Amino acid sequence: MGKYVIGLDYGTLSARALLAEVDTGHAVATAEFVYPHGVINADLPEGWALQHPQDYLDALSSLIPRIMAGISADDVIGLGLDCTACTAFPVDKNGTPLCFDPQWQTEPNAYAKLWKHHAAQRRADQITTIAAERKEPWLDSYGGKVSGEWGLPKLWELLDEAPGLYQAMHTWIEAGDWLVWQLTGQESRNLCAASFKHFYGQGKGYPTSAFYEAIDPRLKTVIDEKYTAPVIPAGQMAGRLTEHMARRLGLRPGTPVSAACVDAHAAVPAAGITEPGEMLAIIGTSTCVMTLAKEARQVPGICGTAKDAILPGYYACEAGQSCVGDLLGWFCAHCVPKDYQEDAQGQGIHQYLTSLAEHLRPGESGLLALDWWNGNRSILVDFDLSGLLLGMTLQTKPEEIYRALIEGTAFGLRVIVEHFRTHGVPVEKLFATGGISQKNALAMQIYADVLNLPVRIVEAEQGAALGSAIYAAAASGHYRDLQSAIRAMAAPVSKVYTPIPEHVKIYDALYLEYKRLHDFFARDGVMKRLKNLKQKTPV
Amino acid sequence: MGKYVIGLDYGTLSARALLAEVDTGHAVATAEFVYPHGVINADLPEGWALQHPQDYLDALSSLIPRIMAGISADDVIGLGLDCTACTAFPVDKNGTPLCFDPQWQTEPNAYAKLWKHHAAQRRADQITTIAAERKEPWLDSYGGKVSGEWGLPKLWELLDEAPGLYQAMHTWIEAGDWLVWQLTGQESRNLCAASFKHFYGQGKGYPTSAFYEAIDPRLKTVIDEKYTAPVIPAGQMAGRLTEHMARRLGLRPGTPVSAACVDAHAAVPAAGITEPGEMLAIIGTSTCVMTLAKEARQVPGICGTAKDAILPGYYACEAGQSCVGDLLGWFCAHCVPKDYQEDAQGQGIHQYLTSLAEHLRPGESGLLALDWWNGNRSILVDFDLSGLLLGMTLQTKPEEIYRALIEGTAFGLRVIVEHFRTHGVPVEKLFATGGISQKNALAMQIYADVLNLPVRIVEAEQGAALGSAIYAAAASGHYRDLQSAIRAMAAPVSKVYTPIPEHVKIYDALYLEYKRLHDFFARDGVMKRLKNLKQKTPV
Repeated sequence: MGKYVIGLDYGTLSARALLAEVDTGHAVATAEFVYPHGVINADLPEGWALQHPQDYLDALSSLIPRIMAGISADDVIGLGLDCTACTAFPVDKNGTPLCFDPQWQTEPNAYAKLWKHHAAQRRADQITTIAAERKEPWLDSYGGKVSGEWGLPKLWELLDEAPGLYQAMHTWIEAGDWLVWQLTGQESRNLCAASFKHFYGQGKGYPTSAFYEAIDPRLKTVIDEKYTAPVIPAGQMAGRLTEHMARRLGLRPGTPVSAACVDAHAAVPAAGITEPGEMLAIIGTSTCVMTLAKEARQVPGICGTAKDAILPGYYACEAGQSCVGDLLGWFCAHCVPKDYQEDAQGQGIHQYLTSLAEHLRPGESGLLALDWWNGNRSILVDFDLSGLLLGMTLQTKPEEIYRALIEGTAFGLRVIVEHFRTHGVPVEKLFATGGISQKNALAMQIYADVLNLPVRIVEAEQGAALGSAIYAAAASGHYRDLQSAIRAMAAPVSKVYTPIPEHVKIYDALYLEYKRLHDFFARDGVMKRLKNLKQKTPV
Repeated sequence: MGKYVIGLDYGTLSARALLAEVDTGHAVATAEFVYPHGVINADLPEGWALQHPQDYLDALSSLIPRIMAGISADDVIGLGLDCTACTAFPVDKNGTPLCFDPQWQTEPNAYAKLWKHHAAQRRADQITTIAAERKEPWLDSYGGKVSGEWGLPKLWELLDEAPGLYQAMHTWIEAGDWLVWQLTGQESRNLCAASFKHFYGQGKGYPTSAFYEAIDPRLKTVIDEKYTAPVIPAGQMAGRLTEHMARRLGLRPGTPVSAACVDAHAAVPAAGITEPGEMLAIIGTSTCVMTLAKEARQVPGICGTAKDAILPGYYACEAGQSCVGDLLGWFCAHCVPKDYQEDAQGQGIHQYLTSLAEHLRPGESGLLALDWWNGNRSILVDFDLSGLLLGMTLQTKPEEIYRALIEGTAFGLRVIVEHFRTHGVPVEKLFATGGISQKNALAMQIYADVLNLPVRIVEAEQGAALGSAIYAAAASGHYRDLQSAIRAMAAPVSKVYTPIPEHVKIYDALYLEYKRLHDFFARDGVMKRLKNLKQKTPV
């Protein structure tokens, strides 16, 4: 009889659970739980996006019994979980969320600020400015820019808007870490989120109190007072399942629980990545790319480099593209004419446009797009940039624009890949997962042709949950090390898109044009000035 | 009892006639005749567009009796006509089109090559090269570039493809000049078409035989042999109506007939323009602008400057934009989503988009367009340029793009206006006519705001025909001079769009951005390189 591990993946709208064979990674059971509260933003100012921590607990109680049907608790030897990040909230010293306390029930800052809570962006910009002025040594590891999605801007917002809440809280904690605390009774922080969202550096710790004081004198002691828990990498045991939780979930008390992980990053072990030179691209509404490096490399303009954050002994590098599926979605929602909608009939409009666009030759449309509809995350880290489409004639057709937008995102990814290489981070093998990678064969062939790299599609319907299961297996001690767990359990490559040499040649020429325009508009202020004009309100 | 003049306007698909009171220009009767043959291009190679001269005669016979109903022939004191140009065909020495001769009935070169016959573009490029190498002095008057729509490329095509036809013909003549010949029995050429389409210069004549010889040795004698008729400006009498024609049309024999005019140019007197500094913009599928200058000015990049061609004593300057209404039409046909089409319901989609776009403030969308979907006619004279749209976000809506396209064409016109001014051709008053000027109030307000000039809409349903009637009145001797005829008979200004100072300020800022991108992409080869890539066919 085999043994099993559980992987939990806490997403934006739902949580998913996976019961996997620990020797093979094979999925035995899966389940999904849609959060009853969902994303809370009604009656809140623009940019707010909250969650209710009760949803996370309800997910646990619902999911685990379902995937355990017919399985003995004794055969489950580990549990791991990943979660969106930074998604965090204040708790008391027992780990009870302060939003459960009637005193704070009407205070928005008491709830979990979801990763895409963007109300603190202005604060993030201030933090960037202050950190840059102070020449904070960690800033380069974040591409020189602090995101409004990260921990400090959100916490500072809490402090400013609800100082009493700040006083009352024991700590302000990532949802993933809070869940591990609930499961094990022990408070900890996962290295992945601490590194990528909270300025923590393995072997270096958090920034100095002088930095926090410069942000706000009241924050001077934030690390000493609120960030006291140990930092543990995923794949190491954060604690063991408590009696209480074991009974509630139908698991064995004492089952090892791995430290948590950021959801995107958990997909890396699931894709079987164990070596530098291997890159994973999660291509969905936006794209997140992650790769490993042997040595610390300062790569300007990427979201972060963090030691040991995905695999011990390696630096995890993360970069991203602000919109990919979202860009194609925008086009389909706003730019596809009626007759196309009608001709698409049964098939979706994406599928219909793809069927037309795949008959086009590379370069045939004469179009070129800068894929900056949602700004540029990497390598320019500039959200004031905007989209550009060039080459239209009176004969230009919708499917040509659709294809040009796909090509634009592929060129955008190539900029990131070449940038990594230039800065000593090799990229030799590309793995892809995420919605677009599964659904859009045309896009993946274009990616292969543009990057001149085979694109290996990882068959992982629940990639992040599998990664968490792999971390659980490693934390349980079943394998010699994390690498061994990954090699045994990772998802298979279901399809490989191979570059077509004739296309590569054309796309090389088009990429030169893309890169020239990329560099021109990165320097040129026109997009920023147009955004500034947007704000001005003439009569 | 008042006296009348007749104006005829020969367009692409139909001809229109106007009977006007000679003292006021007031329209007494109008009529339209759709050509039975229309535009002939079936079974012809790409780019060919022919007409059958019989259509022009049938138009005469149909139109004139209709507008003369109830009017005495004795009260009609003059007739004038305008026609598309260059639209020309070969005739024998009696003026009979060779396509009427059974011998040539199956030869496409025997028919009228319509202005938009584009098959000779390659020849036009060769002519440009040769003329530039020879430093032909007249080339600068044409913005340095010969168009495939003009006379010589089309005639050269005839010579090459049907040398026997070239031998057989007495001359190759503009349709407008041929009609005047039919009416008066006297062969002449109108100065307007000769200047703008056949390299003729008032006081300078045609290019030298050495130039024609350099094009093709067989063309050495073309001017001496085929272009022998006198050149006469519109507003001067080319001859008097023959007995035969008078009887056929129900007019008085001996009625003065004015020399012909190019159709667009005939709209200038109709708009009441008599002074330098006044510009007419005919804003339709494309835009044609014409203005007068006191002195010869070399304005690089405009289609032409021609002495006396519109009003004696002045240089007529012409420039244009390759697509305006066509650009908005492209957008509506290819880029407007289903729900907008449905919401538009009864009203047209243009009207619906306009109703949404007029609520936007200038600059609010953050978008900027280079209006080069059909290349750039002025001031860059480069048909390999293509469209550009910049500033898109995931929130960008169709009505914002629609407005940005309108703004792009307005900025394009401002480039022309400022270019004229820079080269000593003043532009102080702007008159507008054409479809867009009548139908799209939003566009006209934007033009006023972008140009910081009141836009005077000329109420002339039949602007060109009225211009021809004015030329007829002048040719008849009823007025002291052409200026007096124009002042008395021109169409009224029906509406004035006045610049809104707050908008002007914003558009000044946006225009600077437009002009920077305009100049950048005019120099930068990216659009040309993308067009070149279009041709390459990978496997």
